[in-house]
Amino acid sequence: MEYPKINAARVWQRHMELAKIGATAGGGVHRLALTDLDIKAHVRLAEWAGAHGFPVELDDVGNMFIRRPGTDSTATPVASGSHTDTQPFGGRFDGALGVLVALEALETLEDQGISHRRSIDVAIWNNEEGARFMPGLSGSGVYTGALKLDETLAGTDADGVTMAECVKRLHAALPNVGWRELGEPYAGFVEAHIEQATLLEEAGNTIGVVTDIQGNRRFEVEVVGEAAHSGTTPRARRRDAFIAATDIAAALRHYFEANDPEDIARFTIGIFKVFPGAKAIVPGKVDFFIDFRHPSQAALIEHGDAIAGIAAAHRGNCEVSVKEVSQASPEPFSPAVIERVAASAKRHGFSSQRIISCAGHDARFLLRMCPTGMVFIPCKDGVSHNEKESADPDHVAAAAQVVTDVLLDLARQE
Amino acid sequence: MEYPKINAARVWQRHMELAKIGATAGGGVHRLALTDLDIKAHVRLAEWAGAHGFPVELDDVGNMFIRRPGTDSTATPVASGSHTDTQPFGGRFDGALGVLVALEALETLEDQGISHRRSIDVAIWNNEEGARFMPGLSGSGVYTGALKLDETLAGTDADGVTMAECVKRLHAALPNVGWRELGEPYAGFVEAHIEQATLLEEAGNTIGVVTDIQGNRRFEVEVVGEAAHSGTTPRARRRDAFIAATDIAAALRHYFEANDPEDIARFTIGIFKVFPGAKAIVPGKVDFFIDFRHPSQAALIEHGDAIAGIAAAHRGNCEVSVKEVSQASPEPFSPAVIERVAASAKRHGFSSQRIISCAGHDARFLLRMCPTGMVFIPCKDGVSHNEKESADPDHVAAAAQVVTDVLLDLARQE
Repeated sequence: MEYPKINAARVWQRHMELAKIGATAGGGVHRLALTDLDIKAHVRLAEWAGAHGFPVELDDVGNMFIRRPGTDSTATPVASGSHTDTQPFGGRFDGALGVLVALEALETLEDQGISHRRSIDVAIWNNEEGARFMPGLSGSGVYTGALKLDETLAGTDADGVTMAECVKRLHAALPNVGWRELGEPYAGFVEAHIEQATLLEEAGNTIGVVTDIQGNRRFEVEVVGEAAHSGTTPRARRRDAFIAATDIAAALRHYFEANDPEDIARFTIGIFKVFPGAKAIVPGKVDFFIDFRHPSQAALIEHGDAIAGIAAAHRGNCEVSVKEVSQASPEPFSPAVIERVAASAKRHGFSSQRIISCAGHDARFLLRMCPTGMVFIPCKDGVSHNEKESADPDHVAAAAQVVTDVLLDLARQE
Repeated sequence: MEYPKINAARVWQRHMELAKIGATAGGGVHRLALTDLDIKAHVRLAEWAGAHGFPVELDDVGNMFIRRPGTDSTATPVASGSHTDTQPFGGRFDGALGVLVALEALETLEDQGISHRRSIDVAIWNNEEGARFMPGLSGSGVYTGALKLDETLAGTDADGVTMAECVKRLHAALPNVGWRELGEPYAGFVEAHIEQATLLEEAGNTIGVVTDIQGNRRFEVEVVGEAAHSGTTPRARRRDAFIAATDIAAALRHYFEANDPEDIARFTIGIFKVFPGAKAIVPGKVDFFIDFRHPSQAALIEHGDAIAGIAAAHRGNCEVSVKEVSQASPEPFSPAVIERVAASAKRHGFSSQRIISCAGHDARFLLRMCPTGMVFIPCKDGVSHNEKESADPDHVAAAAQVVTDVLLDLARQE
């Protein structure tokens, strides 16, 4: 079987050009979902598609699709892609990589006149980051039926602008593209992304063959004591919610350290609010938020279930309540796609390793629809969601090559 | 020497009546400094004064003075008083007690035709609480020269209203009162106040003979780590400012517990802010605030000076800086006033004990000007700055009696 060589210079050049749309002084990209800048990025992609005559479609939630038609128009298509929106003052590769290597695959196949049975799409999923409209992953979530269209479009940004208005503006900016119904099925999906961690970099490998996306459980903890005068209230009479909450936080951390010698669990307290929050008042209440992630469902259950008991045991003379607010199981990717990613890396001599995705990606929703996999490449020092985000041109080219191979495998399938 | 009996029913009745101005549904008082309600309280006090022909004066910072003239108009006057402003949803006694027992002293002396050499003032110090305008104690602070008039009047509330505008409104509401120059000296000052703690209640004593006002040192602590993705960043690569800050807070608490077996020090962390404060981001920075108080200057120095070293020793892989933002030495009250308070309690058979003021009061600034002391009475369960604040009518009467005795002692002095 034939696997055409991608054009490494072109795919790198496209990254540098797309990064100019919303470029920051710090070398990053500030391109929130469905802003004028993000719409400009979509228009640019549609122009690149148009240069090859690839048809473009938009759907009702603002996802955009660029297609290279297959030889069998009745066969379910396959796809690759990611997103163009960034975090505030984010980087040049998170999202853009997955879109541009997929476009490179289509252009390579077109340039070399290689035909395939199934049509191949570049999917540009809307609002992956969730930085402007909550929640994130909303384009892929609505497309695959995991999220509701009406609720998603009704969502507003910090200025009260609805996503519906913004999607309408995206459509208006691309008047000549087709319309796609939500949920049109795919027969396979592969997404390339920077790792956003350092395993590949540390091992010196080029390709991460992503096997699973880890699960998470999230908890809100409320600790209630009694507010009191900091000058007059002796220690023995205090019910200090700050002390109880920090004792609970420390006990939880020590539990997770003791039960996770291999440093696989991700246990984070990122929100911790003290009330009333005054210089001369012993805190009467603390609210904090636990983000716990793990690739193993058994570990998520065992350690997540331990949280409430540890909190109760360390509450001192305060009250504590622990409420689970969300959970997502670990999701294994399709063995068929995983094997194709691994085979492609081997075929081209890219050093690779099996790896778990610790972050969420659009692929999390696509795997509900079709066989799905992911390809990771290193990012410098694991830094992401940051203007300093950086990737190596050779690694970008390797991602484009693997995605091209896998798309061709999937598109040729019976 | 003659000490007239005060009118216990009247002083209690006045408390209940003043508490109607700004009464809350929860049984407390919400009467922020220089609001319409606080101005109404001043007008009411002026009416009570007028019924006896006591002259009333206002000064440029909004302090009000009610005088019973002495027989020697050239002698430096003496005073007692406190404030009429309350905390938001505060109580009926904090401040009001000190004003109303002083007024009771003047009325008792007037009713019984008892003369005294020095004039005696009821002083109603403006904005003691600092709940509307920062800082608190501003009326007594400006009067005694500890704070600057211009800066204080330029201060604004949350709506941007300056204290200067409000003082003008107070003057306009009392067009017929005299004007007092700031800093007119006193020869003695005594202030009655609820204890705001439980030592008197626990001991079953009526009168607290206040010997000192404790000192304080305040510190801002900044802990800097590195923000990181909570899903992808392994423990070993994190520089979690929340972990470092909570470790520092715990180490400081344990130090103060170990070095303060008698529960005298007041060590409080009431403000603790986590940045960026997002569910899925390992905190990159924490700012917190330490309020440390102690009646002993030696202890303030020793333990306050230990804070930076403890913070540095527990900063883990983060950076920490500790900045002292204010300090006030413990202040002993005048032995002459202390002894007169103790003698009055003994004379009338009120059980008493020597006690330290752990909170700040206007008396802190008056002792810069003249021999000064304080009288405490119990408040139920030590609860203050709260609608539930409550005091016993017998204790209020005892405070009025002691203040009357001490004022008469001070006013008769050569």
